[in-house]
Amino acid sequence: MPNQDDLLPIGLEDALPQRAAAITRTMRAVLDAMDAHGFDRVRPPLIEFEHSLAGRMEGVHTRRMARFTDPESLRTLALRSDMTPQIGRIAATSLSAAPRPLRLCYAGEIAVLRADQLDPARQRLQMGAELIGSDSVAAAIEMVMLAIDTLKAAGIADVSVDFTLPDLVDTLAQQALPLDAGQRDAVRRELDMKDAGELAEVGGQAYLPLLYATGPFDDAIEKLSAIDAGGALASRISGLRAIAAAVGDSARVTLDPSERHGFEYQSWFGFTLYAGGARGVAGRGGSYAIRGSDEAATGFSLYMDPLLEALGTASEALRQTLFLPLDHDHAAASRLRAIGWRTVAAIGEGDDAVALGCTHRLSGSETIAL
Amino acid sequence: MPNQDDLLPIGLEDALPQRAAAITRTMRAVLDAMDAHGFDRVRPPLIEFEHSLAGRMEGVHTRRMARFTDPESLRTLALRSDMTPQIGRIAATSLSAAPRPLRLCYAGEIAVLRADQLDPARQRLQMGAELIGSDSVAAAIEMVMLAIDTLKAAGIADVSVDFTLPDLVDTLAQQALPLDAGQRDAVRRELDMKDAGELAEVGGQAYLPLLYATGPFDDAIEKLSAIDAGGALASRISGLRAIAAAVGDSARVTLDPSERHGFEYQSWFGFTLYAGGARGVAGRGGSYAIRGSDEAATGFSLYMDPLLEALGTASEALRQTLFLPLDHDHAAASRLRAIGWRTVAAIGEGDDAVALGCTHRLSGSETIAL
Repeated sequence: MPNQDDLLPIGLEDALPQRAAAITRTMRAVLDAMDAHGFDRVRPPLIEFEHSLAGRMEGVHTRRMARFTDPESLRTLALRSDMTPQIGRIAATSLSAAPRPLRLCYAGEIAVLRADQLDPARQRLQMGAELIGSDSVAAAIEMVMLAIDTLKAAGIADVSVDFTLPDLVDTLAQQALPLDAGQRDAVRRELDMKDAGELAEVGGQAYLPLLYATGPFDDAIEKLSAIDAGGALASRISGLRAIAAAVGDSARVTLDPSERHGFEYQSWFGFTLYAGGARGVAGRGGSYAIRGSDEAATGFSLYMDPLLEALGTASEALRQTLFLPLDHDHAAASRLRAIGWRTVAAIGEGDDAVALGCTHRLSGSETIAL
Repeated sequence: MPNQDDLLPIGLEDALPQRAAAITRTMRAVLDAMDAHGFDRVRPPLIEFEHSLAGRMEGVHTRRMARFTDPESLRTLALRSDMTPQIGRIAATSLSAAPRPLRLCYAGEIAVLRADQLDPARQRLQMGAELIGSDSVAAAIEMVMLAIDTLKAAGIADVSVDFTLPDLVDTLAQQALPLDAGQRDAVRRELDMKDAGELAEVGGQAYLPLLYATGPFDDAIEKLSAIDAGGALASRISGLRAIAAAVGDSARVTLDPSERHGFEYQSWFGFTLYAGGARGVAGRGGSYAIRGSDEAATGFSLYMDPLLEALGTASEALRQTLFLPLDHDHAAASRLRAIGWRTVAAIGEGDDAVALGCTHRLSGSETIAL
């Protein structure tokens, strides 16, 4: 028999019973938390026109997608690599007349044909919520708090949020710290690299203090305020302060004002979520405009793998499971299932209750521990 | 703005809030019922090697699948069009050492690039359960009863099950009613067409009575027993009687012994599920052998669309939803969510509680009907 590694393509995996159960549990907790805050789930299809998936959001790279020709329309279809543009499409079309703010949530599989270098996975389970119709500070507060609440509902006690200002350089370069177009790209790049030497080299001396306005929120926001030449950032800084105040001690808050990685389509505000115990990012969100309809929105996405990593495997105690012998009392078994028992029925003389994971056996209408 | 019809390819749809909520509810009920009967969920990936999806089951047609070249392995990948072969693969590889019978269940999206003529949908939500390690009458009873229980748990009161004997012609042709290989295909075809004249024409006179051994189970099984030349079908007939007896009055049972459509990979027993109120088939199941490992198994699949059609739209009463004014008491809102309230928070002065679907508003820590 071939090795399991030969049977599935690299970066694609089965979730076997224990992991699949953890996924089901976590996904239900996440969706229930979003639902409790008034977010309605929608389910867009796995496949769309490539143009439609790529057209509504910056940062969606069609060359990484699985693409194929539609035998019906002869147009190019693609498997979704991100559900956020699909939610934008729904808000701008089928739900364009629904009252605003419109609150939608989603959970589903996404896939790419080419993994990125840091993460070999080619399929991920994405979950998220979008508040459509506003990118205000109030919207940002709602979505950051919802993200934290959702993670806690899923069982993650230790949450960190890192704030950023995705359009920071654009904002400063327009007025307070002018840069020409060529310089602007160079300054952005060196801020991304966090390279102070090169930043000065390309004419971004005035931007150097941004590299140091990072870390725990209270300190970092003071540094950012101190360098806010001419008040160009005043509204952003007060917005960040209001969001951090709302978070309070429900999560650790940090600031990295020039971080842009993963925020290709966000506008004034972005945030990264970390779940204690997981390497890497648990989710990302922020404010943006839906392309095409140009409607303001604020949202976030979470990914299942880091959540499961943070939750660990300790979780579930051995479940009470009741073995039903051949010729058992079916009505009794049905009544016991109705009050929460899990049953495993014998279908032959050889069925081994203990090997099949049972903790009890049914005798008449009594449950007897094994 | 383009028409919604232009925005999604034919046969692919969004489920908007009301329908998406019904899907979530129904899927949870189905999976919870399977879980209560000891079936462990597994989650295979959306994409596999084409060879792997097609190789484990008869009747999986790769030409209908969305296929593309894997940039990693340069082999052909395909989007799954049926999850059953994936469950067979898992049973034969990762879970080959797990005790038998092995009970697995699943739910997920499947897709084809070319729809079939009767159903334009190119994506469906498939749910199912497989009992691996047995194709006995006891296994068939468990799976038919599980299918009925599952449909009832999802809210479908009126369930019908149609039994068939997928390998009937092969069984009879070997001994009791001999046919040569060419005749056998012709007889199968004319039985499929239910064409008595042509059936006689191709030399299948002896098979004619099968066309009339159909309909309500008790009558039809008598007719089938009467024509069981030489007892070749005796074990099958007693098996069917035992399954029908187990079903009792929990579902309407019919027999169509020569029905093969949709049973390309089943062996001695197959069944079709109908949900009252839905056109078409709600699900199918039966006994089979997993190709490659040749292990016996019995299982069934359900499809979401006919279940929703049977459930209708009447279902949900208006949900109690609580509007949270600006500057509301966050702790009070959180306590109310914990006891089951759904909340919608104001993010601006203009937010209209009634338009946003709220039935109550929070005042201090009191809920007041709107």
